[in-house]
Amino acid sequence: MADIRARVDGRLLPPGARAPSIRDLAQRLGVSKSTVVEAYDRLVAEGVLAARPGSGFYVAKRVAPLALMGAALAGVDPPPDRAVDPLWLMRQALEPGEGVLKPGCGWLPGDWMPEQAIRRAFRALARAPAAALLEYDTPLGHPPLRRHLADRFASRGITAGAEQILLTDSGSQAIDLICRYLLEPGDAVLLDDPCYYNFKTVVAAHRARAVPVPYTPTGPDLTAFAQAAATHRPRLYITNAALHNPTGASLTAPVAHKLLTCAAAHDILIVEDDIFSDFEAEPTPRLAAFDGLERVIHIGSFSKTLSAAVRCGYVVARGDWIQGIADVKLATAFGNATTNPRVVHQLLTDGSYRRHMEGVRGRLAEAMGRTLRRLDALGLRPWTEPRGGMFLWAALPPGVSSVAVARQALEQGVVLAPGDVFSLTNSADGFLRFNVAQCDNPRIFEVLARALEA
Amino acid sequence: MADIRARVDGRLLPPGARAPSIRDLAQRLGVSKSTVVEAYDRLVAEGVLAARPGSGFYVAKRVAPLALMGAALAGVDPPPDRAVDPLWLMRQALEPGEGVLKPGCGWLPGDWMPEQAIRRAFRALARAPAAALLEYDTPLGHPPLRRHLADRFASRGITAGAEQILLTDSGSQAIDLICRYLLEPGDAVLLDDPCYYNFKTVVAAHRARAVPVPYTPTGPDLTAFAQAAATHRPRLYITNAALHNPTGASLTAPVAHKLLTCAAAHDILIVEDDIFSDFEAEPTPRLAAFDGLERVIHIGSFSKTLSAAVRCGYVVARGDWIQGIADVKLATAFGNATTNPRVVHQLLTDGSYRRHMEGVRGRLAEAMGRTLRRLDALGLRPWTEPRGGMFLWAALPPGVSSVAVARQALEQGVVLAPGDVFSLTNSADGFLRFNVAQCDNPRIFEVLARALEA
Repeated sequence: MADIRARVDGRLLPPGARAPSIRDLAQRLGVSKSTVVEAYDRLVAEGVLAARPGSGFYVAKRVAPLALMGAALAGVDPPPDRAVDPLWLMRQALEPGEGVLKPGCGWLPGDWMPEQAIRRAFRALARAPAAALLEYDTPLGHPPLRRHLADRFASRGITAGAEQILLTDSGSQAIDLICRYLLEPGDAVLLDDPCYYNFKTVVAAHRARAVPVPYTPTGPDLTAFAQAAATHRPRLYITNAALHNPTGASLTAPVAHKLLTCAAAHDILIVEDDIFSDFEAEPTPRLAAFDGLERVIHIGSFSKTLSAAVRCGYVVARGDWIQGIADVKLATAFGNATTNPRVVHQLLTDGSYRRHMEGVRGRLAEAMGRTLRRLDALGLRPWTEPRGGMFLWAALPPGVSSVAVARQALEQGVVLAPGDVFSLTNSADGFLRFNVAQCDNPRIFEVLARALEA
Repeated sequence: MADIRARVDGRLLPPGARAPSIRDLAQRLGVSKSTVVEAYDRLVAEGVLAARPGSGFYVAKRVAPLALMGAALAGVDPPPDRAVDPLWLMRQALEPGEGVLKPGCGWLPGDWMPEQAIRRAFRALARAPAAALLEYDTPLGHPPLRRHLADRFASRGITAGAEQILLTDSGSQAIDLICRYLLEPGDAVLLDDPCYYNFKTVVAAHRARAVPVPYTPTGPDLTAFAQAAATHRPRLYITNAALHNPTGASLTAPVAHKLLTCAAAHDILIVEDDIFSDFEAEPTPRLAAFDGLERVIHIGSFSKTLSAAVRCGYVVARGDWIQGIADVKLATAFGNATTNPRVVHQLLTDGSYRRHMEGVRGRLAEAMGRTLRRLDALGLRPWTEPRGGMFLWAALPPGVSSVAVARQALEQGVVLAPGDVFSLTNSADGFLRFNVAQCDNPRIFEVLARALEA
């Protein structure tokens, strides 16, 4: 073990390199082959090596935190048989492909977005004061947008001054900064099971331990939550505010109340990701509103509702935490730009966002109904019927593996989202997440039908 | 100690809260006051508490990695006597202020920037294909910009295909992602002393150990580099490619050669930040060109040359590392936008960037001469005379503290950059970094003169 470790540390064996064959090493060190096998197995357990079935041992990549996400990342690069993990889905969804259909991706089609209003906002940006186009923004970000957001939050019962809002480059950056501010390596973090896959990757990147809490159609399972809280003493719970990703479920008021009581008893802080709020026709409870931003940090962005290209997120929290999180942002990402916040501000204030979202909610409701019927015809049943939003969490017929179906469909140019990508316990292989806004093309269901038969 | 630790862990004493008074705690626990004082001192050493002179003990903020940067971050928030540390300078430089002059900031004034060309590029963006305004970009970022950058790098002797380039949101994000990809907590990282302050904060944020290597007018001190390499077995060395920040010095070819030989012998990877490359009239050696991207990762951005608001950085590295770093970006920041890369691409290809930088280099040379003369009149001497760029590292008269001068000047509305903000060893208090492009206003030197007298 010392011999291999020294060679890996010294980069004589670089990441991805094949480890010496068991026979060679046994011979060189004058030990038995089974001793070498045992040493290699221990090095695999330590994350120094990765085993590739039928092919031997390789030096693990140095992405130790991400390696927790799945064997694919600990293996050689590029792995020919890359596991179906969160990064697999992200890359499949983001890579362009002639005629590829993506019912598994997590955003609206471009032609659902308010293209003309966005073009108008960029033309206005081209006429903005020079500072907006040339200089860094203030540490907390564009004040007019923060003031407008404060008003919007007030209408949802969340009282926060503009100085309690930090603008970020994205919702993902918001979570990442909060984790940097609050987490130490080894801290436990409660996550819904299933949950948005980026929660898993961000927690792994911070070397924190993700502890699963089963999600129910009314919010997290409170008994499991209390048990995990007592057992693991978590620092943080990260969840969706409403229209939970991937299930489409929403928290009810009684569950929100009990959840906050339990979090207070165990002194757990909560990050509430409200990225889907404006897909709701009727508002459901916000933890930040119940809690008064005592222990809840509220985040969101406009990537899903306005444009994935106009990235702009936010963190709402206690004022002293906002200053601390802003310091972390300065220390690791330095200055802000004001360009995207200006575009978002114009769209939020000129009425185009409101009109656009009314239209989107109507279209989504229609698409939801249509997709439910089409899936029903193939024997897929909704786990819960969402109150809105784009996601449908569909149970496959018994015994069918979503990974197998997704691999088949990918060969036919259809990107599906297999359940275990969202699960911490690999207990969701019987589910697929559908984005109903991306399910218009009947070919999706033909390909799905064939994959199910296979 | 156990009593306080339990209360901090359980958040009965939240970050920033005042610790119980020494008298109260001594009474409650039935111990002597000196026992409590000793316990508090040990808790300060552990980073659990922070002492604020004349005001008692406070619970340290949970920003443990950043706390390594200085007492200010471990103290209560907002500290009335915030230490003059990197974050102090960042915030002073970024906060707007009526009539405040900022010779200590690290970027060009807005009116040096190619405003009309940038407005043109944003108008063009408003007419771009819908996908550019509405959808996520590919994982590596806008292919036309990557292809163009590959050509630019080739002209500097750096051979890299477009698939060896990852676009990032900024140069800071580039360094941060590389650290995430390569570093484990506790790894040693060599940094120039002095160096760009964000290198210090990023290394601290990754819980790595920064090891200082004195910088000389021709590059890092090679003897000290070799010694630090042997003693600390560092994973990484992070440095500027040319026009070193803050000193304005540039690496010579012989030093580059010896540096790479030593790095190879100790298997140290190198991150070369080339953000100031286009300020050079005559190119100096690039480590990435000498090394052929074997162990050098080359990064940069356009924040300093085009616009701080059009944030767009890049990483150039071995193809397998680029895929790994792109995975880290997906896992922690998710998708890219194509908007800023499009604006940058237009400016790089329509000739406006080339003309703009020719003008900037001329203006900087003039401003450098003028600032040298003005500082000389006040008894400040250049540590080295830079070959270009905006930075001048000036030695104060013996016995004068740059922190004291900077505090005085700030009261008069002038933000200076005291030397120790850039130093790992606090050995640069006798220096100030001047940005000659921000030194046009004579009031700066009047305020400086008064501060020097005081």
